[in-house]
Amino acid sequence: MSKSDLEIAQECVLEPIEKVAAKIGIPSDCLEHYGKYKAKLSFDFIKELENKEMGKLVLVTAINPTKAGEGKSTTTVGLGDALNQIGKKSMMALREPSLGPVFGLKGGAAGGGYAQVVPMEDINLHFTGDMHAITTANNLVCAMIDNHIHQGNELNIDPEKITFKRCLDMNDRTLRDITIGQGSKANGVERKDGFNITVASEVMAALCLASDLMDLKKRFGEMLVAYTYEDKPVYIKDLKCEGAMAMVMKDAILPNIVQTLEHNPVLIHGGPFANIAHGCNSVIATKACLRLADYTVTEAGFGADLGAEKFLDIKCRLADLHPNAVVIVATVRALKQHGGVAYEDLKEENVQALLDGCQNLAKHIDTIQQFGLPYVVAINQFVSDTDKEIEALENWCKENGHPMSLSTVWANGGKGAIDLANKVVELCEKENTYAPLYDVNKSIEEKITTIAQKVYGADGVEFTEEAKAQIETFNKNGWDKLPICMAKTQMSLSDNGSVMGRPTGFKITVRELRPSLGAGFIVALTGKVLTMPGLPKHPSALDMDIDENGKITGLF
Amino acid sequence: MSKSDLEIAQECVLEPIEKVAAKIGIPSDCLEHYGKYKAKLSFDFIKELENKEMGKLVLVTAINPTKAGEGKSTTTVGLGDALNQIGKKSMMALREPSLGPVFGLKGGAAGGGYAQVVPMEDINLHFTGDMHAITTANNLVCAMIDNHIHQGNELNIDPEKITFKRCLDMNDRTLRDITIGQGSKANGVERKDGFNITVASEVMAALCLASDLMDLKKRFGEMLVAYTYEDKPVYIKDLKCEGAMAMVMKDAILPNIVQTLEHNPVLIHGGPFANIAHGCNSVIATKACLRLADYTVTEAGFGADLGAEKFLDIKCRLADLHPNAVVIVATVRALKQHGGVAYEDLKEENVQALLDGCQNLAKHIDTIQQFGLPYVVAINQFVSDTDKEIEALENWCKENGHPMSLSTVWANGGKGAIDLANKVVELCEKENTYAPLYDVNKSIEEKITTIAQKVYGADGVEFTEEAKAQIETFNKNGWDKLPICMAKTQMSLSDNGSVMGRPTGFKITVRELRPSLGAGFIVALTGKVLTMPGLPKHPSALDMDIDENGKITGLF
Repeated sequence: MSKSDLEIAQECVLEPIEKVAAKIGIPSDCLEHYGKYKAKLSFDFIKELENKEMGKLVLVTAINPTKAGEGKSTTTVGLGDALNQIGKKSMMALREPSLGPVFGLKGGAAGGGYAQVVPMEDINLHFTGDMHAITTANNLVCAMIDNHIHQGNELNIDPEKITFKRCLDMNDRTLRDITIGQGSKANGVERKDGFNITVASEVMAALCLASDLMDLKKRFGEMLVAYTYEDKPVYIKDLKCEGAMAMVMKDAILPNIVQTLEHNPVLIHGGPFANIAHGCNSVIATKACLRLADYTVTEAGFGADLGAEKFLDIKCRLADLHPNAVVIVATVRALKQHGGVAYEDLKEENVQALLDGCQNLAKHIDTIQQFGLPYVVAINQFVSDTDKEIEALENWCKENGHPMSLSTVWANGGKGAIDLANKVVELCEKENTYAPLYDVNKSIEEKITTIAQKVYGADGVEFTEEAKAQIETFNKNGWDKLPICMAKTQMSLSDNGSVMGRPTGFKITVRELRPSLGAGFIVALTGKVLTMPGLPKHPSALDMDIDENGKITGLF
Repeated sequence: MSKSDLEIAQECVLEPIEKVAAKIGIPSDCLEHYGKYKAKLSFDFIKELENKEMGKLVLVTAINPTKAGEGKSTTTVGLGDALNQIGKKSMMALREPSLGPVFGLKGGAAGGGYAQVVPMEDINLHFTGDMHAITTANNLVCAMIDNHIHQGNELNIDPEKITFKRCLDMNDRTLRDITIGQGSKANGVERKDGFNITVASEVMAALCLASDLMDLKKRFGEMLVAYTYEDKPVYIKDLKCEGAMAMVMKDAILPNIVQTLEHNPVLIHGGPFANIAHGCNSVIATKACLRLADYTVTEAGFGADLGAEKFLDIKCRLADLHPNAVVIVATVRALKQHGGVAYEDLKEENVQALLDGCQNLAKHIDTIQQFGLPYVVAINQFVSDTDKEIEALENWCKENGHPMSLSTVWANGGKGAIDLANKVVELCEKENTYAPLYDVNKSIEEKITTIAQKVYGADGVEFTEEAKAQIETFNKNGWDKLPICMAKTQMSLSDNGSVMGRPTGFKITVRELRPSLGAGFIVALTGKVLTMPGLPKHPSALDMDIDENGKITGLF
């Protein structure tokens, strides 16, 4: 148990990616190789798939997590491996990790223990360059905006009303608020600006919701970049660089295929933020999996209040997907935290706190039921969990009639989720009544209130004066008939990260709205969302190294 | 003749890259594929090559160019194809184009006409991601510097004395002079900063001079990033992130193999600026070519006063390379400009101006002779050249005893340089007395003066007070025993871009010195060098597009 994720990954003898792809029926000439163990599905192959029938879609979501996360990716990978073990033709669709945070605290975002996706180092570093393509497309827009102003500003853009920011895939707090265009006149017009981390860019969100390259180009054109001095919106199509952006994204739009430690095929493609964006891998990857496999297991960022809600209200609605089952990951640790235990004390046995904390799980189950979907609770076992705690949690599920399965995929890989896999297969046989929670044609206020009441359990929503004024602008500009993307803390069902369990009698406050017109949703912010992380006191980068044989150490 | 470079490139039916590689003896399992037509030579293969004998090395350089360039890359590609046509086992080593300028005015940097390297679109877009890796490694350092200061500044770095800038592969003038770390305290320490274009970064220069990954890591450690409040130098090794940087560069250090339109193998790897850096592809790529092929044709940025001088005084010295022959590219157009014709009038026949301008060519020939190397003048024919002009230039060469060859590779590919290839083979049979022009142990002033007098034909060098003070600092810090990298206008032999021909009786002024300790040279700036370009009034990005079949238009 003392091996690191990197060590486990490095011990794996990978299969050539064409062999992994062949398992699921992808011919080797439909792969664009990136080395021996990574490939993109070819442009033509993706097109060919378009008319194929789709298999079953399984969403993995979770309760509100501790700050360490509850193992959604690990469960997704382990469940996919288990489905393959019980003879089901299965694939997984996962998000691409961002490189920037790898240098900070957070490490790999490709599962953990014996439920990982490999080559782990490559997936966590440049992978196939998708993030870099997004960074380039995004920053091309910014260079075009500032060049347009510098060269005469025909569009009459107000430099103080530019909403489209630069981006970098780096944790760099000093780039949050900057002033550009200083020095001589030849350096352009001076103005305030800032960088987002690449995964927080709207380009990323649009990539993940696009149906194909032409749709992506159209989405680029529709992105709002600024307002004129007369408050008229300026879109990328006004700058005429959506064609160049699409050109830059020609490879990035193709899903990436890699393998689990058990050599099963996984598509990893796109990874938008789960607060100001919708936190799911690309629609293109999910649909490719569905057309290739009988079972597709995928995940959505954060807990079910954010991830599952957006998956079901935004992604499935816009992409016309019909999910078949939901796995709700719960951990003893997180439940104890919801029962009042401090993060530092989560290692101590505490059955009562665990049972108190189950109310958080109960609310997320209620949410999935409201979406009309069958579910199973997956207890993701940690080494610190005691037998008594596990037993208590199993009993709570039984007593309340919730299907449940103990998962030990971190320690055991696919065989740690055989029972879960069998239960998922059963759920997928059921008819379900999935439907999004709200009608997009309702008002912005109504849509947000529906989410707050039905998903968070709030009494209602307060809108600040700023938010109210923005709603008025959105209505005026015809931007109101879009789904809502809530930006809220992932730690709590409420908009206050320190409120644990299943709070009642509270309201949430919407402070700001942002139109992500290319992505195709309206972001509602309930607090300040950091879209450019910083590095910690002791960044992981200090401990990273590579030796003369190319072996990497210190990448977690 | 009316086809664009892109159209010619798109008409080419490419061979699978493993077939191209096999021609030169690279086994297919030693390739790391990036799609079907690009690959990196594997880490292990590069190691295996290390003890092999090296073939002949041919440098392609040029006279001082017009602003349109004189066709060095085109000649390099055409000559390589011609050598293959006459049965010589040959490769080409070229620089990687920067993506940023592609959106501006300048297009492809992979040759032109029928002497091109393909897949042209990929080479000019993300290629295999080397530029993005450099951007990431560079910006990691910057994030680490600012984070270090924010987290307590143990090293006592003076935020006003940080010399290491951020970078992006984008033409974005508004990022030249910026203020970062604004807003709340959580955003770090406010200070002045700026972005270079990625190819102008020292990371790029170091990549191109490194012998292997461990040497590159060592070079990263040695890079100067700042000074303390007490003016003590701070290096990357003090920040302890050279290991993480090397990890980020693990793939970028491997040379990329592609093909010419005639399916001959080309390594494209690294492309540093030719002013503040040395302007040549990587040592690793050049040596790999030399060990695989009997003839390696390579190029160096700008005219012989900058490119060849740096190739011979920096790259060949540091990498212990011994070149065998030099091709000096001259064009009727550029010679007429040196003879006093304005750029707009270069289409008009003007034999007298051409002959007057030959003095510029004469000086570059003299420089190559001083390096002890045999040479041939390649007249790169343009459609606007008249028969009389070509004849006059040929006669001038004959009368002055200069070996010469007319090259029509742009229109005819390799068969346009058969004569040139035969002459190059002859030159390579000769013994030569190549040696760098100066001893690195001489003083900084002496080394610069040697270059100015011997290569530019200057009477001497003036150092500004600032430069003198910097030299004193460099001497004190022990940074003076390095070769010099001159940053001078490429348009003229002098440091004044409007002085054509072969000026005499002039001095050059060194205004500033910069220590590139990781690259391993001292940069001497004779004027302001722009390290972040801007976009023009009508950027090329406006005309770029991609259709539903993935076909690109507007990429020049």
